[in-house]
Amino acid sequence: MVATEHRHGTGARLVARRAGIDTYQAAVVYMRADCEVCKAEGYEAQARVELSVGGRSLIATVHHVLAPWLAVGEAGLSEAAWRGLGVSDGQVLDVRHPPVLESLRHIRAKIYGVPLDYDKLLGIMRDAAANRLSDLHLASFVTACVGDRMSGAETIALTRAMIDVGERLTWPRAPVIDKHCVGGLPGNRTTLLVVPILTACGVLMPKTSSRAITSPAGTADTMETLAPVNLDLKAMRRVVEQHGGCIVWGGAVQLSPADDVLIRVERPLDLDGTAQLVASVLSKKAAAGSQRVLIDIPVGPTAKVRSRAAADALSAALTDTGSAIGLQMRVVQTDGSQPVGRGIGPALEAMDVLAVLQRQASAPQDLRERGLLLAGHLLEMAGRAAEGAGVALARDVLDSGRAWQQFLAICEAQGGLREPPVAPHVRPCAASASGVVTSIDNRRIAMAAKLAGAPASPAAGVSMEVQLGARVQRGQPLFHLHAQTLGELEYAQDYIAAQEDLVSIAEAA
Amino acid sequence: MVATEHRHGTGARLVARRAGIDTYQAAVVYMRADCEVCKAEGYEAQARVELSVGGRSLIATVHHVLAPWLAVGEAGLSEAAWRGLGVSDGQVLDVRHPPVLESLRHIRAKIYGVPLDYDKLLGIMRDAAANRLSDLHLASFVTACVGDRMSGAETIALTRAMIDVGERLTWPRAPVIDKHCVGGLPGNRTTLLVVPILTACGVLMPKTSSRAITSPAGTADTMETLAPVNLDLKAMRRVVEQHGGCIVWGGAVQLSPADDVLIRVERPLDLDGTAQLVASVLSKKAAAGSQRVLIDIPVGPTAKVRSRAAADALSAALTDTGSAIGLQMRVVQTDGSQPVGRGIGPALEAMDVLAVLQRQASAPQDLRERGLLLAGHLLEMAGRAAEGAGVALARDVLDSGRAWQQFLAICEAQGGLREPPVAPHVRPCAASASGVVTSIDNRRIAMAAKLAGAPASPAAGVSMEVQLGARVQRGQPLFHLHAQTLGELEYAQDYIAAQEDLVSIAEAA
Repeated sequence: MVATEHRHGTGARLVARRAGIDTYQAAVVYMRADCEVCKAEGYEAQARVELSVGGRSLIATVHHVLAPWLAVGEAGLSEAAWRGLGVSDGQVLDVRHPPVLESLRHIRAKIYGVPLDYDKLLGIMRDAAANRLSDLHLASFVTACVGDRMSGAETIALTRAMIDVGERLTWPRAPVIDKHCVGGLPGNRTTLLVVPILTACGVLMPKTSSRAITSPAGTADTMETLAPVNLDLKAMRRVVEQHGGCIVWGGAVQLSPADDVLIRVERPLDLDGTAQLVASVLSKKAAAGSQRVLIDIPVGPTAKVRSRAAADALSAALTDTGSAIGLQMRVVQTDGSQPVGRGIGPALEAMDVLAVLQRQASAPQDLRERGLLLAGHLLEMAGRAAEGAGVALARDVLDSGRAWQQFLAICEAQGGLREPPVAPHVRPCAASASGVVTSIDNRRIAMAAKLAGAPASPAAGVSMEVQLGARVQRGQPLFHLHAQTLGELEYAQDYIAAQEDLVSIAEAA
Repeated sequence: MVATEHRHGTGARLVARRAGIDTYQAAVVYMRADCEVCKAEGYEAQARVELSVGGRSLIATVHHVLAPWLAVGEAGLSEAAWRGLGVSDGQVLDVRHPPVLESLRHIRAKIYGVPLDYDKLLGIMRDAAANRLSDLHLASFVTACVGDRMSGAETIALTRAMIDVGERLTWPRAPVIDKHCVGGLPGNRTTLLVVPILTACGVLMPKTSSRAITSPAGTADTMETLAPVNLDLKAMRRVVEQHGGCIVWGGAVQLSPADDVLIRVERPLDLDGTAQLVASVLSKKAAAGSQRVLIDIPVGPTAKVRSRAAADALSAALTDTGSAIGLQMRVVQTDGSQPVGRGIGPALEAMDVLAVLQRQASAPQDLRERGLLLAGHLLEMAGRAAEGAGVALARDVLDSGRAWQQFLAICEAQGGLREPPVAPHVRPCAASASGVVTSIDNRRIAMAAKLAGAPASPAAGVSMEVQLGARVQRGQPLFHLHAQTLGELEYAQDYIAAQEDLVSIAEAA
């Protein structure tokens, strides 16, 4: 393809109609196959067209309609196209052949293994953020970037490009600190512990979190069961001014918007490559105005990062890229051999967090200790504690109840504390033999939680009843499934029934 | 993902409604977001569901509808889903969560660089042919297989898998011969010359051709402007019994159906990788019952194959794979430095073919000589001529008019000879300077022909007025654009206006 940014053809005019069809963020325009515009301009089904009205324009995929709900001369818009154009029913749209996008040529080059520089990646990210690329092109680009197909230089350039197509926040005080877990470890919801501890110590921590991409819950999904997270920038700033921190959804404040577009294909493809991961994480941190960033990499045979070697490689990629864009980085590798806490799924994880913050005797100790470890590192990075003295300070802040008070204040400022929802359908999965639990498969436990409905159904998921090393009797529940609907419960149960050694037990001799 | 082929959940029932929406072969089911099934089963927009009725079932992507044209309790089906299920309005469909597809796990592995064996590739091709994979998954798989990402062993396995998921033809006589051009050279329409020459000599040549993937015309598109090509197997056999050969569209006889599904994403992505190309070509040949196959690889700076080295690599891949699946192969590398003949686009290329077959003085000699060269090789491969004596025999058959008579007979048998359509809008593109034509860009000339509407508009395309080495005067037309609509004509003109050296001219000193 060859670049040419100016518009083509004389174009044509169609009357906008809200089709009321949710195509999951893909911009689709429905046109009568027998309308003059299709005939005159030669728009086939699957053709891409540029729609413009007022100053705004977007590129949409054509679907032909031969049904009475759409009239000849009308352009039915999918919800994404409707939102993207910001039109109202009856407005007249200009419909044109789209410009031949330079970025498509760069994506094609990348597919064939040609490295891309900043300018080319910026072009791709700009077109992605502007919704000019079809889902097929996005899927192809994401696929071409997974594994080790992106060099360090490309990863840095991609991160910069993602930052530069979105907003970039600045804060009155320094240092601005942040943390992130690369994920793959169900229930590892430490952010909800770390933010109140750090901000209670006067450290600035304006946390923007993501929703789940391929996991049963993201931090934003979990926090949302306790308080509103869809705060706009103005509301977020107000909360941070009052309490020194917040826990909101990053997507609502338009940080790294290109990343949000890529995620829409990464999710159905269940893809989350290294370069994408590094660029996604660090672009959002930098865009959020963070200066010092702690990364938690859980390592285990069934975690996202399975070996020490892989963890070292990812640590290096994160540290190199972070330093290159001016972030002070610290990376810790943690135990990823089994799920953290009991709950897996937004509401179930929220329960664990509350138990730790409220210092309940039943609170999961592993979640508590992981939270304290990370908070300790961050207190040291922020200069609030000497090297090695961070954890003790964090423990004091948590045990004194100051962290819980601080969390309550933040929830109130974000719109008010909520009761996490409870699932109507709960079923146990019992041990098939007596013995000792020798392994728990993080990935397949997470899959079971997703099939049960998490994170779309916030109350759905899995609650673990055992940990590694536990002695169990035959018939004793290993975990419970929680679901909003019977259909999803059965779907998850069928899946589990087909699994071996999801939780493996060595029978006592 | 983990394999489990048995069905999930109790499922639910919805009344089938033809939505009358053409989504370009993607199976989409439109459901009311507020219908009980969506709520009870937790189907989100973009979710994949399994629809079944009678014995048939397919997997479709859910799009939510909140408009009056679809009632609660109804399932609106896209044209592809409607055809795939073969339902009628008002029939009751079972709607279920789809099985977790084993093939998705294999596609994911391939994306991360894990080689796939025959069984895994067969699973992917089976699910592709059965329309169980979404366009996103297909795009991701195709992307993961381009360039040199498929080994020789994988290419052989992929070819076998493609053959094994479709029909395989057998013929009463031997040898069955076939030819194929890897493409990338506009106007190289030799099949329409070769088939009548070979069959006139009594060689069996039941030719199944493809439509354009990323080019302005495929052989099937060109032949279709002269005679029907959508023959079913029975009709095809009748033609071959009568005349020893045919030129029909392969897609209509269900050879290598998985390949046709992959092509639906390769086309919008403009992707056509080596392994895909080899598997696509040879699977269709083997499935068509061919035993001896000649491959034409045009080599030139702007052809699909740009260097001698690349041509040798592709020759080796084709020969190795072909031999592995039991084909007798011969590969010729030809001049790919400029378009062949005058016409580029289905009807315009058909005109050139007719001129050669009818022995018109104005017939393009380069097309004629290429046809004779390939026919000569095939006559030798078929044992009808001694090595080196093939071209002379072919020339005699063409010059005696027997090839033209044979072509007429085949067209009549396929449904009757047609007049190729003529485009209503024709515009010249003139030389900007006087001098000698030193280069012609095949790719960008092809792009111009596509933007003008080829192959969707069969009369559209480009007609070349000059060849390399021609002396031209400033203002003299270098080529003409042909379009069905003014919109497409202007689109192509805008594109050309933005190009430099599409046809380059060295000014005479």
